[in-house]
Amino acid sequence: MKRALIILSGGLDSTVLAHDILARGEKQLAAVSFDYGQKHTRELECAARQAALLGIEHQTIALPFIGELFDSALLKKGDELPKGHYEDDNMKQTVVPNRNMIMLSIATGIAISQQRTELFYGAHGGDHAIYPDCRPDFVEAMKSALQLCDWQKIKLHVPYLQDDKAKIVKHGLNLGVDFAQTWTCYAGGAHPCGKCGSCVERAQAFALNKVKDPLLTSQ
Amino acid sequence: MKRALIILSGGLDSTVLAHDILARGEKQLAAVSFDYGQKHTRELECAARQAALLGIEHQTIALPFIGELFDSALLKKGDELPKGHYEDDNMKQTVVPNRNMIMLSIATGIAISQQRTELFYGAHGGDHAIYPDCRPDFVEAMKSALQLCDWQKIKLHVPYLQDDKAKIVKHGLNLGVDFAQTWTCYAGGAHPCGKCGSCVERAQAFALNKVKDPLLTSQ
Repeated sequence: MKRALIILSGGLDSTVLAHDILARGEKQLAAVSFDYGQKHTRELECAARQAALLGIEHQTIALPFIGELFDSALLKKGDELPKGHYEDDNMKQTVVPNRNMIMLSIATGIAISQQRTELFYGAHGGDHAIYPDCRPDFVEAMKSALQLCDWQKIKLHVPYLQDDKAKIVKHGLNLGVDFAQTWTCYAGGAHPCGKCGSCVERAQAFALNKVKDPLLTSQ
Repeated sequence: MKRALIILSGGLDSTVLAHDILARGEKQLAAVSFDYGQKHTRELECAARQAALLGIEHQTIALPFIGELFDSALLKKGDELPKGHYEDDNMKQTVVPNRNMIMLSIATGIAISQQRTELFYGAHGGDHAIYPDCRPDFVEAMKSALQLCDWQKIKLHVPYLQDDKAKIVKHGLNLGVDFAQTWTCYAGGAHPCGKCGSCVERAQAFALNKVKDPLLTSQ
């Protein structure tokens, strides 16, 4: 495998993916995270810790204009977070308009500048109902665009695109991922709120694996 | 026409395009510019002046991470600017990796947040040889991606994609564009350098229209 870059949110999916890439023998993985004015920075702190645990280069890029100009309940200035199941229609309030294309396009510019050719991102099957920029059609369009945006082609890998969260948790358990150092809750309290869509989906994924979420037991 | 947003660099092409859109009857055009660590800010100053002249909303978004992390002769920290014709191979040193996708993706997020549905950018035919992210294939891929990135579809318009710069100058002359308030030179001196590819192409475009460039005569 060639020199690779991963968009590491500090959530469960991209963290398992980073472990997965290294387990497959990639020696030159680096990670990038984005601070786009989310309601909290717990996820970004987890991203930094996971990168340190994995011994990979990591940087966090600030995108303050998103927090200032964009409209989403996921942002500090946004509305109150909706409660319910991750795939419920009211979760669409948490879409940050075009967030993933922005992150992918910046990561691509960094990858090209560092002579990297492989870009990984952790969209998964559960994201499709709510997040338009996690759908397979969007991923296909981005794969095409990333082959054309520079004289150096960038290959986009989204290996969990059809997997549900339970399968990703199972995979992470096999890889020895420390899930206590991943953050999924949309809110940024001392403990996960347990009520937002993201918490509900995570709890279901651990339950299906018949494993306790160490993030909950450690707090 | 619906509510539209234009990426306005302050160069000649996007400035003519802004005038063009308004001349076609668009009432709710807004403009966005990007400060990505270019060697100078003369172009951005022109963008602000043109937006004021046109009476349209305008904002400049800072992307300091490009200047810090990306590799290009167009950036402050980059190598010396190459000299020659705009379409010469050495001009590829001035590519800022994936710059246009980054600008398009951010502009799209803003457009969606403001309930705009039309996005304009001023890539032209002369750009194709050097700038991969101005080529028709790239534009087509981006058009597809922008139809899928959000639940609200964004339509990308690149009306000068097949036009040469002489045709754009002609169009601008007919529209009464003040070309003294546009900046094209890659360098940021008191006067255009006259030697970089961008200056050479601009001079050729005015010469083909048998008109003196007012930017040169006014200085």
